Amino acid sequence: MRATMMTTPLTLTPMLRRAATLYSDIEIISRRPDRSLHRATYGDFARDAVRLGRAFMKAGMQPGERVATLMWNHVEHLAVYFGVPCAGGVLHTLNLRLHPDELAYIANHAGDRTVIVDDVLLPLFAKFKDRVALDRVIVVGSREAAIAAGAIPWDDFLATGDDDWSALPVLDENAPLGMCYTSGTTGKPKGVVYSHRSTVLHSMTVAMVDGLGMSQKDCVLPVVPMFHANAWGIPFATAMVGAKVVMPGPYLDAPSLLELMETEQVTCAAGVPTIWAAILEQLDKAPRQLAPGTRMVVGGSAAPDAMIRAFDRHGLRVIHAWGMTETSPLGSVAHVRSTDGDEEERYATRARQGVPSPTVELRAVDDRGLVPWDDTRSGELQVRGPWVAASYYDQPDAADRWTDDGWFRTGDVVTIDRHGSIKIVDRTKDLIKSGGEWISSVDLENALVAHPAVREAAVIAVPHPKWGERPLAVVVLREGKTATPEELRAFLGEHFAKFQVPDAVEFIDAIPKTSTGKLLKSALRERYAIWSW
Amino acid sequence: MRATMMTTPLTLTPMLRRAATLYSDIEIISRRPDRSLHRATYGDFARDAVRLGRAFMKAGMQPGERVATLMWNHVEHLAVYFGVPCAGGVLHTLNLRLHPDELAYIANHAGDRTVIVDDVLLPLFAKFKDRVALDRVIVVGSREAAIAAGAIPWDDFLATGDDDWSALPVLDENAPLGMCYTSGTTGKPKGVVYSHRSTVLHSMTVAMVDGLGMSQKDCVLPVVPMFHANAWGIPFATAMVGAKVVMPGPYLDAPSLLELMETEQVTCAAGVPTIWAAILEQLDKAPRQLAPGTRMVVGGSAAPDAMIRAFDRHGLRVIHAWGMTETSPLGSVAHVRSTDGDEEERYATRARQGVPSPTVELRAVDDRGLVPWDDTRSGELQVRGPWVAASYYDQPDAADRWTDDGWFRTGDVVTIDRHGSIKIVDRTKDLIKSGGEWISSVDLENALVAHPAVREAAVIAVPHPKWGERPLAVVVLREGKTATPEELRAFLGEHFAKFQVPDAVEFIDAIPKTSTGKLLKSALRERYAIWSW
Repeated sequence: MRATMMTTPLTLTPMLRRAATLYSDIEIISRRPDRSLHRATYGDFARDAVRLGRAFMKAGMQPGERVATLMWNHVEHLAVYFGVPCAGGVLHTLNLRLHPDELAYIANHAGDRTVIVDDVLLPLFAKFKDRVALDRVIVVGSREAAIAAGAIPWDDFLATGDDDWSALPVLDENAPLGMCYTSGTTGKPKGVVYSHRSTVLHSMTVAMVDGLGMSQKDCVLPVVPMFHANAWGIPFATAMVGAKVVMPGPYLDAPSLLELMETEQVTCAAGVPTIWAAILEQLDKAPRQLAPGTRMVVGGSAAPDAMIRAFDRHGLRVIHAWGMTETSPLGSVAHVRSTDGDEEERYATRARQGVPSPTVELRAVDDRGLVPWDDTRSGELQVRGPWVAASYYDQPDAADRWTDDGWFRTGDVVTIDRHGSIKIVDRTKDLIKSGGEWISSVDLENALVAHPAVREAAVIAVPHPKWGERPLAVVVLREGKTATPEELRAFLGEHFAKFQVPDAVEFIDAIPKTSTGKLLKSALRERYAIWSW
Repeated sequence: MRATMMTTPLTLTPMLRRAATLYSDIEIISRRPDRSLHRATYGDFARDAVRLGRAFMKAGMQPGERVATLMWNHVEHLAVYFGVPCAGGVLHTLNLRLHPDELAYIANHAGDRTVIVDDVLLPLFAKFKDRVALDRVIVVGSREAAIAAGAIPWDDFLATGDDDWSALPVLDENAPLGMCYTSGTTGKPKGVVYSHRSTVLHSMTVAMVDGLGMSQKDCVLPVVPMFHANAWGIPFATAMVGAKVVMPGPYLDAPSLLELMETEQVTCAAGVPTIWAAILEQLDKAPRQLAPGTRMVVGGSAAPDAMIRAFDRHGLRVIHAWGMTETSPLGSVAHVRSTDGDEEERYATRARQGVPSPTVELRAVDDRGLVPWDDTRSGELQVRGPWVAASYYDQPDAADRWTDDGWFRTGDVVTIDRHGSIKIVDRTKDLIKSGGEWISSVDLENALVAHPAVREAAVIAVPHPKWGERPLAVVVLREGKTATPEELRAFLGEHFAKFQVPDAVEFIDAIPKTSTGKLLKSALRERYAIWSW
């Protein structure tokens, strides 16, 4: 017997049609480079998305052809997010924080034929464009800047399209939709090619209560850039549910973000801990009239327990999530469990990375095999599911990132508790082994930032003649605050075994970061490679 | 270029594994025929589901083989829901409210090889079992009753299985999972065969905020029977998110349900309006300590505006949804929109059937073509999407239920407002045409039940020598309340044009209903076919 159900493909086009019809009056607000706020609707956005897609089709774009973006978060970027894939092309978001050499490598490796670039990013683009063979360059923003750069103004290109929805191609759900390159800590950047199916399924999980809970009644501020893991898939999900969206443009500083959160009454914002630490510092200085119960989605790095508690005091609710470019990115989310007892247990649950989204499966593996759910033994986190990468694009030498039985090896080291909730204890190459015992640098970092004088902290392994490795804490103090190494070591001593406490604390002005805001520990390790204990 | 994502099939097995591991301690409570409460966990349930599936595999069950159930809502039924499909079989839920002749027809048409039956339903089963060729009968409940009936006791059959998850088959996502027959107002009952894919996608929508909002923190009471459109897919969704479940067994009376809602602190209950009307009457008599903000999912028939307001006064929130057996069933849900202004506008939104779930598309068509979104012109509702039926099982003569371009013709007549929200105004054959003007019987019924003396109302078309048809109201009064036809007609006259008000009101003790609780208007039409105006 066969099922009698429709096998309607899961593609982006019905989601665009949905936004265009059900939510035509809902707003999309974009901060412009001149700081002004541009107000559009899903109706405007969808019209431009179709025109853009049709313009590419008329210009001879082939199925699967790559269209790159070099753009901040704004409504035109959203139109490219939908317009290019619905016309059969592949959206390739370039990370504007990378070095021009890396951008040139990535654009060439991906085979980009078009780049759509913000006028304010033309100086960056100029640094690598001559190294990439392109059919066309389209510029959003100043018409004059576009013409001066020998590029096509956005409006002119749109004008070559039309509003003919029926001319959009019928797509297979496994057709490519977009690609992102990972920030790549080892070797060259590697590309992931998302499908229509993986994107639609991922959007559904973002809109689930135990996902990120996006709904039509939300006003969502994606602080996470649209050039970083598709802004965690939020732009697709918000269009699917019809949420109002507020796009920060190039202004990711705390005062600018708080102003948007207050004036637009944002109900859900998403970004990395570094952003929220800065927001918290501002809020502690001067309270704001934010929407009560605003959800602050934190990912990219672990959200320290102290941050979760601090936001609670401001009436804002941190939602802690884990994911990677290779997982679309939502892999797990931490929500309070119905069986959690007192406040402390609820905070303990929320400080973990949580349980996998439905249809995603997680496991941890060490030398001895599958790690039991005892929250003690740790192992490498492995993942599989319908929005997880099965390979990198044109990168056969990276096949060792997948196990023989088809799971993706994340490189994160976790413990798993009896409820299946993961806790990242480190990266595979970032644990500290002292006298045969593992020390988690992440635990120490989370503890350090709970100290009132500490703004940021990194703990790294430094070679040691006796113990093999010992932890060194590198700390950035808050403005106007002081602390001594002795004070901080005593503070850690309250919660950690003696052998786990860093032997030394170094104070510096800023911790080097990757383009996506993660602590760049390799730079610190180099700096402190020769250390006299 | 190709996408690099995993194409992990969307099947039920990972969902069962998820329930077994992440939620092994979460409770499933079942009311037994002796009224006692049986408490189990997802761990217990998943173990039994696997044992059941393995028992069927060892007994030689073929892929796609039908296993029928004749059962109330309880944990063993849930084990069949998962165990049979994960072993490659097809779950076929028999509607115990049907006539034995109809049950015999359906079981034969479906080709059921096994029936699993509640001991308390053996007398019903006895009325048609001799007309069906079965390989085996399994009885849940009394061991003695099973043996007396020549059947296999549930525990004995489970004992022939094992706990070998790895021996479960690898399934295609389009493989059949289950089947339901529609109550079929015209012609023979017709079967829909759900796939694993359609069921997983449907479960995801049930767990979305703008779906039914199911989450791990919920305690869900599916009043809607598991033999009726898979209890609206709730048993699959609750297992996916790990919600506590309370199963009412055979006791669907208001006092029994309210007791469960109070003692187990139910946060979400789902059923037809008839059930909620009875609950409301009880609550008006004696308040209960229910969980604040409990969601009451109403479907199957339109939820009258008066009911929504009445539950709000008790602090309970009606969620109005529309669907059919052919749509898995969730097709649309009515949630307050972010742009809704005052209280009246919000109630108006909630009294509609709402907007389609993501990936589902709705349209209305009349003689002139697509009906515009003006909330005035009405047409037949048509639907398509990945959990909508594309045909009936082995019923080629019903192909006219689908349009040439592949949409399912629902038989419901709707208007659509500017936001795409549908409002059912009638069934295709249930509008009243008086002097060339249409009258909606549903609108009149909803208005009548807002009268304090009216418990239930049906409005039917009765032949009329001058106007062709005229509406007749058939009314059941509340206990101890009185009203005259003149009073009720004056009450309706406040909101309806003179020609729309029924010319006569008949009082009766009970309105005949279909097996799924819908007003059986055909019976009323017969009864009042010859009427002297």
